[in-house]
Amino acid sequence: MEHLYKKLESYYAEMVEIRRHLHQYPELSFQEVQTPNYIAAYHEQLGLEVRTNVGGRGVVATLKGGKPGRTVALRADFDALPIQEENDVPYASKVPGVMHACGHDGHTATLLVLAKALSEMKDELEGNIVFIHQHAEELAPGGAIAMIEDGCLDGVDVIYGTHLWTILPFGDVGYRSGPVMAAADSFKIKIQGKGGHGAQPHRTKDSVVVGAQLVGNLQQVVSRRTNPLDPAVLTVASFVAQNAFNVIADTAELVGTVRTFKEETRSLIEKEMERIIGGTCAAADVSYEFDYSRGYPAVVNHQEDTEFVAGLAPHVPGVANVYEIEPSMGGEDFAYYLQNVPGTFFFTGVQNPKWDVTYPHHHPKFDIDERGLLVAANVLGTAALSYLKKEAAEAASEIKAV
Amino acid sequence: MEHLYKKLESYYAEMVEIRRHLHQYPELSFQEVQTPNYIAAYHEQLGLEVRTNVGGRGVVATLKGGKPGRTVALRADFDALPIQEENDVPYASKVPGVMHACGHDGHTATLLVLAKALSEMKDELEGNIVFIHQHAEELAPGGAIAMIEDGCLDGVDVIYGTHLWTILPFGDVGYRSGPVMAAADSFKIKIQGKGGHGAQPHRTKDSVVVGAQLVGNLQQVVSRRTNPLDPAVLTVASFVAQNAFNVIADTAELVGTVRTFKEETRSLIEKEMERIIGGTCAAADVSYEFDYSRGYPAVVNHQEDTEFVAGLAPHVPGVANVYEIEPSMGGEDFAYYLQNVPGTFFFTGVQNPKWDVTYPHHHPKFDIDERGLLVAANVLGTAALSYLKKEAAEAASEIKAV
Amino acid sequence: MEHLYKKLESYYAEMVEIRRHLHQYPELSFQEVQTPNYIAAYHEQLGLEVRTNVGGRGVVATLKGGKPGRTVALRADFDALPIQEENDVPYASKVPGVMHACGHDGHTATLLVLAKALSEMKDELEGNIVFIHQHAEELAPGGAIAMIEDGCLDGVDVIYGTHLWTILPFGDVGYRSGPVMAAADSFKIKIQGKGGHGAQPHRTKDSVVVGAQLVGNLQQVVSRRTNPLDPAVLTVASFVAQNAFNVIADTAELVGTVRTFKEETRSLIEKEMERIIGGTCAAADVSYEFDYSRGYPAVVNHQEDTEFVAGLAPHVPGVANVYEIEPSMGGEDFAYYLQNVPGTFFFTGVQNPKWDVTYPHHHPKFDIDERGLLVAANVLGTAALSYLKKEAAEAASEIKAV
Amino acid sequence: MEHLYKKLESYYAEMVEIRRHLHQYPELSFQEVQTPNYIAAYHEQLGLEVRTNVGGRGVVATLKGGKPGRTVALRADFDALPIQEENDVPYASKVPGVMHACGHDGHTATLLVLAKALSEMKDELEGNIVFIHQHAEELAPGGAIAMIEDGCLDGVDVIYGTHLWTILPFGDVGYRSGPVMAAADSFKIKIQGKGGHGAQPHRTKDSVVVGAQLVGNLQQVVSRRTNPLDPAVLTVASFVAQNAFNVIADTAELVGTVRTFKEETRSLIEKEMERIIGGTCAAADVSYEFDYSRGYPAVVNHQEDTEFVAGLAPHVPGVANVYEIEPSMGGEDFAYYLQNVPGTFFFTGVQNPKWDVTYPHHHPKFDIDERGLLVAANVLGTAALSYLKKEAAEAASEIKAV
Repeated sequence: MEHLYKKLESYYAEMVEIRRHLHQYPELSFQEVQTPNYIAAYHEQLGLEVRTNVGGRGVVATLKGGKPGRTVALRADFDALPIQEENDVPYASKVPGVMHACGHDGHTATLLVLAKALSEMKDELEGNIVFIHQHAEELAPGGAIAMIEDGCLDGVDVIYGTHLWTILPFGDVGYRSGPVMAAADSFKIKIQGKGGHGAQPHRTKDSVVVGAQLVGNLQQVVSRRTNPLDPAVLTVASFVAQNAFNVIADTAELVGTVRTFKEETRSLIEKEMERIIGGTCAAADVSYEFDYSRGYPAVVNHQEDTEFVAGLAPHVPGVANVYEIEPSMGGEDFAYYLQNVPGTFFFTGVQNPKWDVTYPHHHPKFDIDERGLLVAANVLGTAALSYLKKEAAEAASEIKAV
Repeated sequence: MEHLYKKLESYYAEMVEIRRHLHQYPELSFQEVQTPNYIAAYHEQLGLEVRTNVGGRGVVATLKGGKPGRTVALRADFDALPIQEENDVPYASKVPGVMHACGHDGHTATLLVLAKALSEMKDELEGNIVFIHQHAEELAPGGAIAMIEDGCLDGVDVIYGTHLWTILPFGDVGYRSGPVMAAADSFKIKIQGKGGHGAQPHRTKDSVVVGAQLVGNLQQVVSRRTNPLDPAVLTVASFVAQNAFNVIADTAELVGTVRTFKEETRSLIEKEMERIIGGTCAAADVSYEFDYSRGYPAVVNHQEDTEFVAGLAPHVPGVANVYEIEPSMGGEDFAYYLQNVPGTFFFTGVQNPKWDVTYPHHHPKFDIDERGLLVAANVLGTAALSYLKKEAAEAASEIKAV
Repeated sequence: MEHLYKKLESYYAEMVEIRRHLHQYPELSFQEVQTPNYIAAYHEQLGLEVRTNVGGRGVVATLKGGKPGRTVALRADFDALPIQEENDVPYASKVPGVMHACGHDGHTATLLVLAKALSEMKDELEGNIVFIHQHAEELAPGGAIAMIEDGCLDGVDVIYGTHLWTILPFGDVGYRSGPVMAAADSFKIKIQGKGGHGAQPHRTKDSVVVGAQLVGNLQQVVSRRTNPLDPAVLTVASFVAQNAFNVIADTAELVGTVRTFKEETRSLIEKEMERIIGGTCAAADVSYEFDYSRGYPAVVNHQEDTEFVAGLAPHVPGVANVYEIEPSMGGEDFAYYLQNVPGTFFFTGVQNPKWDVTYPHHHPKFDIDERGLLVAANVLGTAALSYLKKEAAEAASEIKAV
Repeated sequence: MEHLYKKLESYYAEMVEIRRHLHQYPELSFQEVQTPNYIAAYHEQLGLEVRTNVGGRGVVATLKGGKPGRTVALRADFDALPIQEENDVPYASKVPGVMHACGHDGHTATLLVLAKALSEMKDELEGNIVFIHQHAEELAPGGAIAMIEDGCLDGVDVIYGTHLWTILPFGDVGYRSGPVMAAADSFKIKIQGKGGHGAQPHRTKDSVVVGAQLVGNLQQVVSRRTNPLDPAVLTVASFVAQNAFNVIADTAELVGTVRTFKEETRSLIEKEMERIIGGTCAAADVSYEFDYSRGYPAVVNHQEDTEFVAGLAPHVPGVANVYEIEPSMGGEDFAYYLQNVPGTFFFTGVQNPKWDVTYPHHHPKFDIDERGLLVAANVLGTAALSYLKKEAAEAASEIKAV
């Protein structure tokens, strides 16, 4: 393992360089072209077996070890966000309105350089490592589901992934068994009233008033109808009914999101929303359309794998603290991998302790402490190698036992 | 008077022609160019004294009678609306997105042809008649106030005006003493919350929820806080807070209108709105901006003048029924003329009894029964001449009495 | 007429005495015993024909005039209210918790003494006068409807009534043609949720939350669904859901009143309430009972009769000002008489100009300026005699004409 | 330990008998007289050192062991509830309106008989056992806090308690480290509006409308303002504004409860309630009183002690399953003991698998599977003896080491 750490440390400058390069040329979800080409070229140069256009725009590179064994997958996502960067740095985005504001540039750089280091240790490798570079994590239905359908997990025994996380300080690693990120659904409600002159309400069916009641009534889903022990969020993000000042609104459109950890709570909320919308619209004699769209399911980490990684992490260079974290109400399509194979998704701190302000993920001034890339590579590499070694040892002992 | 009626009847075809011409070339409020030119040219051809650009784009033509006496003003507005006409008629609007959907084309045609008829009777005229062609009635602050400041009422003793009204059948004339059209105010409320991720409501101040509460709370202004005997309307016409489905709204903007008949109710509503907005925003710890913008005041007809016209109308050719009508919650800047001189504003029926559907004013399929133009001209002409005759007779008897 | 005025003025002390006597012994609606006995005895002493227990507890006395003619009815109500008097006057109520806090004591005294004066003028009377003393005006279904069914209006040609009114100063008389007092309905809404422990909302259906939504939603009936030109009030007076602090409410009960002037508005409100309650309860999956109970209809004065009385009033001794008043949102079962025969209900000022504070009707400190009793008697007497004289004259001229 | 189990099993009939006796004579919180006398007499007969009136009405009995060692406290509460029993059993409550509907009768019987068994094993006891019989658990401020102030924990090293729990089947034991029962606070909000006639809303300040808004607005505390990962409940249990149907409400009173697990969430909720109430009342120009009363804090089990008991439980006779349970939003003043000494509070299943319906705690038909009493005694006894033994052993080894 020390061998790996030394290699990675010596490649740190390259890691940063790759991250900054990607940061300057971000591409939106499902529109990625240069990024997967770049990734594929890098892996090809290392001599790995590369598949492109996996599930659309994904790239999968396989490192076959010199010895037989299990197969570990490591995953990094590579899409960016429709945000105009406001950082004044030399490597700022060169694409107007598009920005790596969630750290996927770092995820990709981490994985590429880790592949380089591991490929150099190929001969001792007791099994295989699959590098899954996923497109479109930021936009439902996401790239994961299509990549899985396209076989990216075929033959894979376990999967690890990490998110560079500005909520944690540099040096820290956060883990959690069970639900760690929420199911992230979206909804759209269109209220169809009957417009008319603002001075004659009695001849209309005012959709602004109905929409306003709905926003109020929907608060009850979380305050009264879900189990207070099951975390849930229902947010009406948009309310749009745009008219001249003296025209009563014909239609109003509400858009929002629902976050849950349990399938039972998720279904309950959809059902209760339908009930509340139906009753509220009936009370006002207006019609409606309600679209509830299921997004990524909750990311549910496997216990054994989580404890495995959590047990290794404290011994990895650059890691200062390892602890269990609260779950996050955010969503991630890493969820789909974990529905198919065992594994865990952990969080690597990239908050720079010298910053006065830490801008949150998705903020125009989001940035990361790049030293976290090396930590992430160290932990992912440690996990992959330790897993393969452990499985090889067990296989050997089973053979002996027989 | 019979003389006048015969003339007007013989000019009916011209009246329709002018109305249809104007209908094809509508111009928006405060952007009128061809229309005032057309009007001015017509009056000049009749030999009247014409002032243009009165208060901006208004036209005032004065007919000096052959005998001394009082001065009557007659007013017609000539602006059109930002509506795309949907009528399939030969005289449909030729200007995309602009339409005479409120009958101002008819008002203008009525007044022009009436001026023609009266100018031919000039010598017998015991006083003067001022034809006020007003721009920009549809858009606050309106043309009336500027035309008055620019002297259009100088020397005027009384003013009459009518609105072609599809709510009344052809042949009917509606009048009402006192408040007949509402004060029409507008407001804008901007709620400044604190946006954030849709999954983390506790780190935000959700402006959609506050806006929704406001819409609900503002209903109480009319249901609880104004005197139930004083008609009032408060409409929130627009509610706009537009965000991605997973972003909690930073700001929300509400726009709407308030209609009242009494100054006291109007002031009360503004004050109560301020109170409700202030309290509701304090409850949510958000800030706000509240702009309440006073539009036209209520049109308050003078009793004596209203009764004078209502008494004459039943004897006018083409008039089938004359009756007191309910006030309308709509607004009109004729209000300003009546704050300066006595007079009345009445309604001339242009609903065609053969229509299956009557489209309301401001509707893309709005149209009028053009026969109402002749009725309007007859009543306005009768009112003007009768007033001058009555005043001349009174003046004569006063002289005798001395 | 001067004769009548002199008589009434000379009996003013008696009028006050009777009023004060009744004031000390008030009786609740539908529980009146001493009061009708007192009234009947008084009329019997005058020698009038008296019917008791009319429609329950009403008293009807008939004065047959010496000459043939029409029949005028005059009505006074005599029940009191469940209020504990707080006035410190020698004639204060001696019945705990019961009080003449609406002036019915004065109505009765006025009518009795007027009967005395008119009975002394019996011989000259060109027709008959019926004195209707009605029980139970304060409590639906009221005494009027039963008295009418029991024949109190048989043979009656016109009816007059007045209310002593502290809103008007002494000396003033208010009249209004058409709707003058509102239809006064009541309603009860019982929400049946599902109670439970306050810490487990998701296992319950919280009827307090539903009731609260209903109160909010019902505000829209007046703010959005009725014509702003038709006055209407909807008040939720009671909200009762009483539980231990940690128990979620099983049921909630809302009680209130609706006031309208037009039958169409009244029906619309009942229908819209049903719709709003149904939808709101459906949204929360709770059941409900909704009882809408129609109270007195609107008091609608007949135009001819109103103008007749309004024309006479200025000439009556003690009357300083006569004017048209705004309608009142209060209710009165005088409405039923006017549904059966022509007539009018007017208001006689009893506000004492020297009072610092005028307590409203139904207040524990309500009192009246007793001089208004004489004015009321003068106007009612004038109306009755003038009507009979006018009708007699018309009858005579018709006979002549034949 | 087998010795203890045999004794307890042989005393099972007595345990049931005591429970049924107490069940027939329930006493309300802070009104207990016979029950503490009964308890004290029982312990005295066993020869234990007994203190009565501890912190008011509590009883503390101390069993001094034959050998030196630590001191374990075991606690049972003994008050009943203001509920009318609806069970048709021979041992039903003989006190009208009072019932042991939460199992405190069973807690007491368990502890008394356990004391009997342990007192017979006195000589081998390596330390002391304190039996804390607490009054008034059901009513804030509860008996625990006063008993602690009165010294009931003096010299105590650890405390154990259990709740007989119908949510768990007979045979099961539930445990949880950290917060296991919620902080249970109560609040009262009095809204002072301005009453008046139901037909004249504009002259009043309607407290029913304000109260209804408050209920709606308070839903946001949990839906928007607390961290979705920190469970919280805010229930408005009562809404009382009682008036005649035609009177607008002068005052409205809201009463309810707040449940939380974290002090930070608890404080946030109190602060946000104050803000919401203040703003909502300001919007309506009414005044208010807000009393927030802190009840029992959260029961926070100590990790080491919880794991200790959870580790022992599976080996105890009668125990079928032992598992971690979800926390409960209910409150318990056992919380105070755990703020002073280490310990744990666990749950002993008393749901009878043959029942068709299991009535919840505080229900008029609440009952328990009495076999659970023996299980509870076995586990508590095991915990106490094992703790003393363990501590004695550790002490011994420390001595040796020295």
